[in-house]
Amino acid sequence: MNFGVYLPPQCEDTKLPVIYWLSGLTCSEANFIQKAGAQRYASENGVIIVNPDTSPRGLSIPGDSESWDFGVAAGFYLNATQKPWSDNYQMYSYITSELIQLVNKNFPVLEGKQSIMGHSMGGHGALISALKNPGLYKSVSGFAPISNPSKCPWGEKAFNGYLGSREKANWFEWDATELVKNYNGPPLEIFIDQGSGDKFYIEKQLLPENLVEACKNAHVPAIFKLREGYDHSYFYIATFIEEHIKYHVKHLTN
Amino acid sequence: MNFGVYLPPQCEDTKLPVIYWLSGLTCSEANFIQKAGAQRYASENGVIIVNPDTSPRGLSIPGDSESWDFGVAAGFYLNATQKPWSDNYQMYSYITSELIQLVNKNFPVLEGKQSIMGHSMGGHGALISALKNPGLYKSVSGFAPISNPSKCPWGEKAFNGYLGSREKANWFEWDATELVKNYNGPPLEIFIDQGSGDKFYIEKQLLPENLVEACKNAHVPAIFKLREGYDHSYFYIATFIEEHIKYHVKHLTN
Repeated sequence: MNFGVYLPPQCEDTKLPVIYWLSGLTCSEANFIQKAGAQRYASENGVIIVNPDTSPRGLSIPGDSESWDFGVAAGFYLNATQKPWSDNYQMYSYITSELIQLVNKNFPVLEGKQSIMGHSMGGHGALISALKNPGLYKSVSGFAPISNPSKCPWGEKAFNGYLGSREKANWFEWDATELVKNYNGPPLEIFIDQGSGDKFYIEKQLLPENLVEACKNAHVPAIFKLREGYDHSYFYIATFIEEHIKYHVKHLTN
Repeated sequence: MNFGVYLPPQCEDTKLPVIYWLSGLTCSEANFIQKAGAQRYASENGVIIVNPDTSPRGLSIPGDSESWDFGVAAGFYLNATQKPWSDNYQMYSYITSELIQLVNKNFPVLEGKQSIMGHSMGGHGALISALKNPGLYKSVSGFAPISNPSKCPWGEKAFNGYLGSREKANWFEWDATELVKNYNGPPLEIFIDQGSGDKFYIEKQLLPENLVEACKNAHVPAIFKLREGYDHSYFYIATFIEEHIKYHVKHLTN
């Protein structure tokens, strides 16, 4: 598994908190590194950023490269239960456990001082990772997150393939809008960022309003920022990444 | 010919100055758009950025795609005199004349208020475009520019192919270090930016010191910023692009 690590200059003298970034469909770890422009703000704010790949690679499982929204680069940050995916597509365990241990062991991080954010499928991954592990992350945010995957075509396809049919599997364990209903842990604020001109938002792949509504009903505080005219691209991310980094650093240094 | 145009929001109300960006070897117009992070600073400073492609494409001239430092994506911003390149590889005329007219006609630019900058081969292109056209550009800067192409392997290969052998052709007409010796026009400052860890700098493909020395002898002011440890990549560019944009805007709004 590849992942990127940005170490700001402050690391030479001191340990720093970490923000994990989870990327969206079709991405490797390279997209965020090259296109988000996050390094400057991580440096200014004294935080490490770790950004993993979006799926296992190189397995040549039949069907893993036939579509861009399932298999390679589309791991959906869950633990697959269906063969042949269940052997390797264990992205949830990788992100919330193995990767954190690896990073803590090898880089100058303040253990336990970590937050998580992501884009699209990675926003979904950030949300479920935070909601399923109360206290593990100090804060969570998503750029155009897939907020209610049980009810959108991307999520239905992925969950059906990785978890099995809706009737037999508990899809709700991997759906932020469902998980927030039963959230029980330290106070957690859900920061959802969304461009109003985002094609996939308009096509109802993302459904952030469902998550906001669920937060309201569950008395979980939510911030929903709808950015007029912005699309789903890394240009949108680059525009607001500074705001997200500052948001997380505020929570990490409290 | 493809090119990128970034129009900041201020364009809705007013005409703005333009900075032309010339990219380096192997690039299309996409690299700068996706990797330099220039949009934020162009927006903050109220300037349009236009970034053309680095060569003609789609011609299928024999040999135009055999190497990454000659032919496609390696036009070197000169006017070729040697067949078969001379029919289409006229990047110098395109950049300094045709493209400016096209931009002036189609976008809300302040005519005559233009500067030019570039990276590596594009830094060379920016320098010769400014030096050969006194007054056309208000300012010029290069990130790791190929500063003395007559004396480096990249330049020797390109000039030999596009212009003919050194003995028969006047390579000096396309070499910033030679051109500055005879510069005669409005005051022009040469801003050269260079990473000290740049592999191609160390291998003497760039030779910025030759240009600085020639500037000194010709009494042309030069700024040479050697950035400790930075390499040749777009991460280096992204780090200092704000400084260059502000530098050009200062000259464009004087």
